[in-house]
Amino acid sequence: MQPRFEVLARGGSARLGRLTAAHGVIETPAFLPIGTYGTVKAMTPEELEALGAEIILGNTFHLMLRPGPEIIAAHGGLHRFMNWRRPILTDSGGFQVFSLASLRRMSEEGVRFRSPIDGAEVELTPEISMAMQLELRSDIAMAFDDCTPYPASEREARESMERSMRWAARSHARYYADMGHSDGGPPGGLFGIIQGGVYTPLRLASLDALTKLEWPGFAVGGLAVGEAHEERVRVLEELVPHMPAERPRYLMGVGFPEDIVEAVERGIDLFDCVIPTRHARNGHLFVPGGVVNIRNRTHASDVSPVDPGCACYTCRNYSRAYLRHLDRCNEILGCRLNTIHNLHFYLELMRAIRASIAAGSFERFAADYPRPRRDAGSAVA
Amino acid sequence: MQPRFEVLARGGSARLGRLTAAHGVIETPAFLPIGTYGTVKAMTPEELEALGAEIILGNTFHLMLRPGPEIIAAHGGLHRFMNWRRPILTDSGGFQVFSLASLRRMSEEGVRFRSPIDGAEVELTPEISMAMQLELRSDIAMAFDDCTPYPASEREARESMERSMRWAARSHARYYADMGHSDGGPPGGLFGIIQGGVYTPLRLASLDALTKLEWPGFAVGGLAVGEAHEERVRVLEELVPHMPAERPRYLMGVGFPEDIVEAVERGIDLFDCVIPTRHARNGHLFVPGGVVNIRNRTHASDVSPVDPGCACYTCRNYSRAYLRHLDRCNEILGCRLNTIHNLHFYLELMRAIRASIAAGSFERFAADYPRPRRDAGSAVA
Repeated sequence: MQPRFEVLARGGSARLGRLTAAHGVIETPAFLPIGTYGTVKAMTPEELEALGAEIILGNTFHLMLRPGPEIIAAHGGLHRFMNWRRPILTDSGGFQVFSLASLRRMSEEGVRFRSPIDGAEVELTPEISMAMQLELRSDIAMAFDDCTPYPASEREARESMERSMRWAARSHARYYADMGHSDGGPPGGLFGIIQGGVYTPLRLASLDALTKLEWPGFAVGGLAVGEAHEERVRVLEELVPHMPAERPRYLMGVGFPEDIVEAVERGIDLFDCVIPTRHARNGHLFVPGGVVNIRNRTHASDVSPVDPGCACYTCRNYSRAYLRHLDRCNEILGCRLNTIHNLHFYLELMRAIRASIAAGSFERFAADYPRPRRDAGSAVA
Repeated sequence: MQPRFEVLARGGSARLGRLTAAHGVIETPAFLPIGTYGTVKAMTPEELEALGAEIILGNTFHLMLRPGPEIIAAHGGLHRFMNWRRPILTDSGGFQVFSLASLRRMSEEGVRFRSPIDGAEVELTPEISMAMQLELRSDIAMAFDDCTPYPASEREARESMERSMRWAARSHARYYADMGHSDGGPPGGLFGIIQGGVYTPLRLASLDALTKLEWPGFAVGGLAVGEAHEERVRVLEELVPHMPAERPRYLMGVGFPEDIVEAVERGIDLFDCVIPTRHARNGHLFVPGGVVNIRNRTHASDVSPVDPGCACYTCRNYSRAYLRHLDRCNEILGCRLNTIHNLHFYLELMRAIRASIAAGSFERFAADYPRPRRDAGSAVA
């Protein structure tokens, strides 16, 4: 079924919404934990459900290389392969191909690249990405796009955006053409991705090109790729008010907790990011207003939890000293406990955002939300 | 409290028993998963409880080096440090010191060695091991022993055994002397360890020396260190009938499922081994009569579970293809799911052993139990 979206309440530009997909309902604003290889690293599906995750993201590019589409199709799709019953959004692979840089060769048709796994030549086109996402049977598929690098001249950004728009049309055509051919049709719908770099006229032109077709949701791609924080906020402020109000708006790959609050303020409904899970595995644990680096010696004999105010399984049962010890010994349980804590932090943030929009107090919530200084490196880490 | 043991039923030499320790009751024959660094690798305590583990083993040697005794003591002991509520048995460090080989210097006083973590000189003596185990507040502590290597001449085995017996007496003296000094006394009791290599007269002399003191349980140490399978069985057959019938008998470091059945047949009550957890992380999954190597290509697109007859979480929810995929991608969830399966296999075996002793059918169970050929390497792996 096509994802359906309703806006239930507003607080300034922020929206409280409900996105209904084939495998369930997602309360928005929502955060999608990343399940790159058919697993949100270190977590079981039941743990994700208990943490309150209502939707996760799967990476088409990675799953195409390992285990390959035919193996997931043999299981009836990604849900059954990985034992996750709630909605899945799959990306198109465009962003990962973009990350390969020198290993890829781009043409109008699509992209050819060397597999980083075994060096084999692989091709990814809008049509191949759609076929793959249909085999994954994701609730929400993403159009195949060319992610514009940063920095890019206006001319480069325009060429790249225009290619993305041609690929979006090919993605749309193939996705819905194949709908009738697969068993009972695809379980989901296809979101379009707005490109255009940091150039507002290009962003608006991209949106304009996309809206010639029907999309159940729109994503903002090509941000959080190196541009300054102020540039990102400016693009959102100049672009989001023009995006269709009745469709969910998805800011891809963002970000830190304060980035999410800031983007919700500007009307964004969906977020995904590796930060909570990746930081967890590196021992960086989110606490109100900052990050605890569990590797720091100061925690060596600290019997208190990471955050005494946190209700997560990790903080209820384990000390900083224990988590530091697990990290030093490279114990798997350390990654697990850290990941539980960080995902709880993010999903709790989303609950607090939704509650404050519902209560009419979001603007106050956002104004009071701490903006810790992050070093530039950690945003990318 | 001192561990108490009752024998509830017998089947030939096999015993169904109940061991009551400070933190709970252990139905025997029992298997102890290994929690080297204050965590059974990849598992939470709740998962271990759900699998039916009633007691786990902690490694004094490893915990002494990381995080160190004072940090665990600051938490009030190993139970609270690692959030495990059921009984814990700690080893003495003797076996690990023995494994260090060239890095150690042995004297009558004890052993000095270079820490494999940071090269610092560390000393381990019966008194230090007891102090450490008392700080861990384990339910069952083990005497500090000199594990006799294999092969060893009778003279070498005798000297080593006699040193172990002097160390056992020093362990006993210090453990119970310190009882009154720590908060409310130690929560547990101290088991003696019988040494003597593959020489039955030495084994019996060791038992004789130990029984001059009171021990709530007796272990057989220094087996599964390279001797032939037949030698191990012979030692058990010649030694176990002389061990006190009213005390639990613990065969340290054994083994494969069929080794456990064979030793229960000869009167052993307690087992510990890294095999189920370590094999899991290497993708070796136990099934009736053998092992599935999940890395094998034949499982690449196999949508069936590891063992259709297995009721574990892994087999109920995931395919061989998914487990192989997780293993190839070095995903943490792969280690978790494999460990759940293998520990379920071992703990289910112990339940089946106990049920058959209770039902009077253990001798038949043991006779029918499959003896797969294992290559010598994998026993040590």
